[in-house]
Amino acid sequence: MQFSALQLATMLDGKLEGNPDVKVSNIAKIEEAGEGMLSFIANPKYEEFIYTTNASILIVNESLVTEKPVKSTLIRVKDAYSAFALLLEKYKQIMSNKTGIQQPSHIPASVKTGQNVFIGAFAYLGENVVIGNNVKIYPGVYLGDNVIVQDDTTIFPGVKVYENCVLGSRVILHAGCVIGGDGFGFAPQPDGTYKKVPQIGNVIIHDDVEIGANTTIDRATMGSTIIRQGVKLDNLIQIAHNVDVDTNTVIAAQTGISGSTKIGKNCVIGGQVGLVGHIQLADGTKINAQSGLSKSIAEPNSALMGSPAFDYKSSLKSQAIFRNLPDLEKRVKELEDMVKQLLSVREGV
Amino acid sequence: MQFSALQLATMLDGKLEGNPDVKVSNIAKIEEAGEGMLSFIANPKYEEFIYTTNASILIVNESLVTEKPVKSTLIRVKDAYSAFALLLEKYKQIMSNKTGIQQPSHIPASVKTGQNVFIGAFAYLGENVVIGNNVKIYPGVYLGDNVIVQDDTTIFPGVKVYENCVLGSRVILHAGCVIGGDGFGFAPQPDGTYKKVPQIGNVIIHDDVEIGANTTIDRATMGSTIIRQGVKLDNLIQIAHNVDVDTNTVIAAQTGISGSTKIGKNCVIGGQVGLVGHIQLADGTKINAQSGLSKSIAEPNSALMGSPAFDYKSSLKSQAIFRNLPDLEKRVKELEDMVKQLLSVREGV
Amino acid sequence: MQFSALQLATMLDGKLEGNPDVKVSNIAKIEEAGEGMLSFIANPKYEEFIYTTNASILIVNESLVTEKPVKSTLIRVKDAYSAFALLLEKYKQIMSNKTGIQQPSHIPASVKTGQNVFIGAFAYLGENVVIGNNVKIYPGVYLGDNVIVQDDTTIFPGVKVYENCVLGSRVILHAGCVIGGDGFGFAPQPDGTYKKVPQIGNVIIHDDVEIGANTTIDRATMGSTIIRQGVKLDNLIQIAHNVDVDTNTVIAAQTGISGSTKIGKNCVIGGQVGLVGHIQLADGTKINAQSGLSKSIAEPNSALMGSPAFDYKSSLKSQAIFRNLPDLEKRVKELEDMVKQLLSVREGV
Repeated sequence: MQFSALQLATMLDGKLEGNPDVKVSNIAKIEEAGEGMLSFIANPKYEEFIYTTNASILIVNESLVTEKPVKSTLIRVKDAYSAFALLLEKYKQIMSNKTGIQQPSHIPASVKTGQNVFIGAFAYLGENVVIGNNVKIYPGVYLGDNVIVQDDTTIFPGVKVYENCVLGSRVILHAGCVIGGDGFGFAPQPDGTYKKVPQIGNVIIHDDVEIGANTTIDRATMGSTIIRQGVKLDNLIQIAHNVDVDTNTVIAAQTGISGSTKIGKNCVIGGQVGLVGHIQLADGTKINAQSGLSKSIAEPNSALMGSPAFDYKSSLKSQAIFRNLPDLEKRVKELEDMVKQLLSVREGV
Repeated sequence: MQFSALQLATMLDGKLEGNPDVKVSNIAKIEEAGEGMLSFIANPKYEEFIYTTNASILIVNESLVTEKPVKSTLIRVKDAYSAFALLLEKYKQIMSNKTGIQQPSHIPASVKTGQNVFIGAFAYLGENVVIGNNVKIYPGVYLGDNVIVQDDTTIFPGVKVYENCVLGSRVILHAGCVIGGDGFGFAPQPDGTYKKVPQIGNVIIHDDVEIGANTTIDRATMGSTIIRQGVKLDNLIQIAHNVDVDTNTVIAAQTGISGSTKIGKNCVIGGQVGLVGHIQLADGTKINAQSGLSKSIAEPNSALMGSPAFDYKSSLKSQAIFRNLPDLEKRVKELEDMVKQLLSVREGV
Repeated sequence: MQFSALQLATMLDGKLEGNPDVKVSNIAKIEEAGEGMLSFIANPKYEEFIYTTNASILIVNESLVTEKPVKSTLIRVKDAYSAFALLLEKYKQIMSNKTGIQQPSHIPASVKTGQNVFIGAFAYLGENVVIGNNVKIYPGVYLGDNVIVQDDTTIFPGVKVYENCVLGSRVILHAGCVIGGDGFGFAPQPDGTYKKVPQIGNVIIHDDVEIGANTTIDRATMGSTIIRQGVKLDNLIQIAHNVDVDTNTVIAAQTGISGSTKIGKNCVIGGQVGLVGHIQLADGTKINAQSGLSKSIAEPNSALMGSPAFDYKSSLKSQAIFRNLPDLEKRVKELEDMVKQLLSVREGV
């Protein structure tokens, strides 16, 4: 797809400087952009690139002052970063603007689908599945019986959603994630074996949630595992049965949350963090990457680090001394020698 | 599906109190149950809910004494928890009682299938695959050539089993897990590149094993990676080539076991644990979440913690002092000052 | 498939001792090999097995001296290990020698395919996908629009590659890995919600790369996430947007690399390691399993350990003292008592 400078300037309500007919078919960072590409300069520290870039079109701030001739066609707008982000979004929308139902796909008569839906080949919808408007279901997706998918949600290839789970509106599920697998519940028996505890609950994912590739969210034993509005989960995260993650919490890759733990609103949890089961985190809790948490956090906006985790600043101090433990041990050894000497002197006296 | 109180009471051989015709179509925890739902009370601390719940039917212990009128229809049984668990299991069985072979699926003429089998659409069976009785293969499953699946095993959607692997009876593989991918074996070459070591072994999974979503178990270089009877693996676990996990061991999510390590019977391994290769764990070893183990454990029933891990109780003590390292350092500083003073006094003398 | 001793000896240019007609259909380690199996002895410490093994054929070094009668047919070659590895490789090639296009698969008219290609059933190729010669695409693979796959690359079942990504020659992608999912980029808004930053870049995987099962590699925000020639990634690894991993670097399972981090050539990174974003690792950096790195490493061939990681040897020392922290604390306590005593004595004087 190609756009001319004139088209883009019109779209962005910007002022055009240079050749209005030059065309771009790709987007790149200023330092990497070549001919036929569109880029932007918002940050003054990148302004030097304006004289050397091969980008055919540049979006810049109205206020930008050029001191030498510029090869690229410029489009001047109030806020170059926002204008560029807007274009990116439109570009992404156009690129992923798929509709229609491809064959073969498995769609029983009991399924209800909304308008303007995309269902890719090899997608499998169970009995009584309900699909809202503008939903995109990529190839190879599996939706179990009675799954509900609300409007404007996108499910990327190979996602598996077990029966009875509910996905809200504008949810994005990335490839390979698994929603609603059985929680890890087993009752130990006297002979050392384990008996499976049936997991008959479901997973409910509220609006505006994004879930990364190959992340797994287990169904509740009874009731629901809940991911609330605006939560963003990265790749390869494990969410166990009956967990509840409250609105606008962000969790980085490879973190694991054990069963029945409740995470507050607006928390920020780093990568590879582990949380034990049955604890609560207050709103705004921040947890450093690779930390391990085994206790509830009652105070909102706490920052924690370490495995086991404690207060971030104290943890930093302990870590600094840990690095110098051999030195501390040496100081103790020297003290021991000196004190021994003092004692012997005293005894000598 | 609906059940009347009379049907359930008959099924459980229980005594009915209240309306025998009231019907339920769902199951919930006592504190969340509404009209049309079935719940139970086994633990005395939940007995207070009996007067406030909207559950239409409650399973309770024979011995339960009510002091006020109860809205719900009661079914009295010897052991309310066991009776409820039995119902859950039956419910789960009914919900997942799929049979038949859906089209399109890929089933070569060389495949042998038992009786009462379910094979979902888009499932792919390689040459010479053998499927036992009552096996359920969900949509989008891939079984490579010569894979054997024994009776009553369930393979959830999108599971991939590479060629020549063997699955026992009553095995459950959750969505997206990968059985039999190549072990991570590369021979370093003089020029800094790596040469792949062909991985020609397989994976053998014994009876009654359950494996979580997106867990990966690599095939052996030669011989077999073995998961023995009754082992339960959670989601996103990595089991490397030639590992052997002995009976009734339980491993929590995101743990990784490196190549050729042997884990004993009835071990309990927490989440996000890492084990290096070529070590052995004695039966009954317990490892705390996020620990890292680099040495064999010879003593049965040991408990370990930390990265690197050591004895659980000692590890707790070291962690407690770690939290107070700044304090310990301060005490050493004070000692240094005092000793310096003592020395100067002595020299002054 | 069966091979006679004569066939194998001819293939390996080896000298045959024993029955030239004996046949093998399987391969095993010397200590596990039975009748009808082929094995080898390269390491002198396994030579004792030569008199007890039931292997039908053994590949041994020319120089091997036998002192008692041997049941197995021997094939003597210059280097038994290399000869055996060669056979393994040929065996693996024969076992996986699939070609042809199975139906149903989704291959739009705009797709270009090379010669001698295998495309399994339920594979989905997007518009304008380009497939080189001898490429194997297993069942259930998804390749988004414009994906390029170069010669001799193998994509195992259920791999998902998002649009515009590029795979080099002789690449191996194991089952369930996800290439090109959206990077985890969200702009925090004043109301506490997050706005998705469109991820319009791609992933480029160079020649001779192998990527493990269920590993995830995110597409760049702009530009490319790059995995360079000869890199080997194990299972369940997370590579974030705009990461660059240089040639011949090896990364073990469950490690996570955060956004825009650059890893040098010939690095060796253990399992469950975490790297923060926007750092650089010099060539030859070695990082111990479960370490966490938050700073760039400028010195080539550094070895690091710990979370947070520092110099390997110092880290070992700190860990050793950590194990004995209760002892160190006790020594400090004793010093305090002694010094208190000394002070009181002095005051007493």
